[in-house]
Amino acid sequence: MSYAREMLDASPSPVTVDKSVLATVIDALSDCAQACVADIDDDLGEHNVTEMITCIRLCLNCADVCTAAAAVISRPAGYDASVTKPLLEACVAICKTCGDECERHAEMHAHCRVCGEACRRCEQACRELLRAL
Amino acid sequence: MSYAREMLDASPSPVTVDKSVLATVIDALSDCAQACVADIDDDLGEHNVTEMITCIRLCLNCADVCTAAAAVISRPAGYDASVTKPLLEACVAICKTCGDECERHAEMHAHCRVCGEACRRCEQACRELLRAL
Amino acid sequence: MSYAREMLDASPSPVTVDKSVLATVIDALSDCAQACVADIDDDLGEHNVTEMITCIRLCLNCADVCTAAAAVISRPAGYDASVTKPLLEACVAICKTCGDECERHAEMHAHCRVCGEACRRCEQACRELLRAL
Amino acid sequence: MSYAREMLDASPSPVTVDKSVLATVIDALSDCAQACVADIDDDLGEHNVTEMITCIRLCLNCADVCTAAAAVISRPAGYDASVTKPLLEACVAICKTCGDECERHAEMHAHCRVCGEACRRCEQACRELLRAL
Repeated sequence: MSYAREMLDASPSPVTVDKSVLATVIDALSDCAQACVADIDDDLGEHNVTEMITCIRLCLNCADVCTAAAAVISRPAGYDASVTKPLLEACVAICKTCGDECERHAEMHAHCRVCGEACRRCEQACRELLRAL
Repeated sequence: MSYAREMLDASPSPVTVDKSVLATVIDALSDCAQACVADIDDDLGEHNVTEMITCIRLCLNCADVCTAAAAVISRPAGYDASVTKPLLEACVAICKTCGDECERHAEMHAHCRVCGEACRRCEQACRELLRAL
Repeated sequence: MSYAREMLDASPSPVTVDKSVLATVIDALSDCAQACVADIDDDLGEHNVTEMITCIRLCLNCADVCTAAAAVISRPAGYDASVTKPLLEACVAICKTCGDECERHAEMHAHCRVCGEACRRCEQACRELLRAL
Repeated sequence: MSYAREMLDASPSPVTVDKSVLATVIDALSDCAQACVADIDDDLGEHNVTEMITCIRLCLNCADVCTAAAAVISRPAGYDASVTKPLLEACVAICKTCGDECERHAEMHAHCRVCGEACRRCEQACRELLRAL
């Protein structure tokens, strides 16, 4: 069980959204942010770095947006749909674009394959939370 | 002139949005994030801390969302409206709510007055950029 | 296997530190940052919030320092001991103090117990990486 | 007057360090983080991007460490030298290395010149705060 799930189970906050959905999103956002940070580092070391520029740019934005969303979603007590919804929509958009670009390089670069999977999982988790809100 | 403006002036990226609008938003987002972080620290030291809980919660989210947006907006080369727009909408929403709450405490706490001003200025700057995109 | 470990295994960077040590630190830093963010949210909802102020202050710093360290450690290609070492020392110090404070509230608040465990695990992981560097 | 200085002047915390020193550091850290984020975006758009890899790697770490330090220093109420000192030492180290690298490209790239200045100013401000602590 992840710490995100343990923290939700230990929380006194009356959470209206299913806790397993929330925990999945928080973990997926953290994983995606980390994978993007690592993927940038790897892209910068590749011989074809000039072909990885778009991937690096997308991973930079993806890491920042997912990091912010992970923190906001980790504070269930003050949920406000007017903030959470557009923030999750921004996550879905950047995870989709970033995941597509990573997949283009997946065969050549294993790190892009793994990062692309983290983006896909995060995109799906955010979509599911958006439906549940 | 702020570093944000100097960096934009020195940038080789073909920026389609007015650079003074962009620099104003970047500075306002950074200022708002910093003010919210400082305001939380001050709120926690007030005798009426139990009345400041909502203010603290809003400042926490405001700082995180504005920090992410400051970074994304600071990367003009890869602007993508599908990400930038909802992210700015999240900023507008949290800055509005956070600014309202800070103003409620402005007479009693000078730090909330200053933080409320930073939120207002950021909300307006984000709205202006949204119109310009 | 965590994404941090998968990314390290897929990385072309010649990493001199044991990858399982690195992955453990990255995961522990991410977990600790998330647990601290969640714990602050929970502390703010407790009836004895005035007794949780120190815990909240420590969790705020712990989350920020661990988030930065998680990113820096996730970029093995450019490791520089003059940066990584003091950063990890800052992590050890804040995780120690924050873990101690969380433990003081562990019996009364389950969320502080879980957060304290995340701090302990992170402190130990950072110490182990410091020895390995 | 910056918001950082306004917030410090409005703070009820008994700050033992000179407020102008603190405000200078907070502003310098925020400026440096922003400049590094922007410089990475510009570096990625340069024709000689393969020669900018080291600069990008250093700016990535510099932005993350300075962002964390800006937040921690913005919370004067709970200052703890065992955390603040190594964190500032990490800032001094990365700002020094990053500033050196940016300066190497200053003649060719105006954005690196501006970013290098932000790194230098931040390095000096952090050194001054370290002396004052």
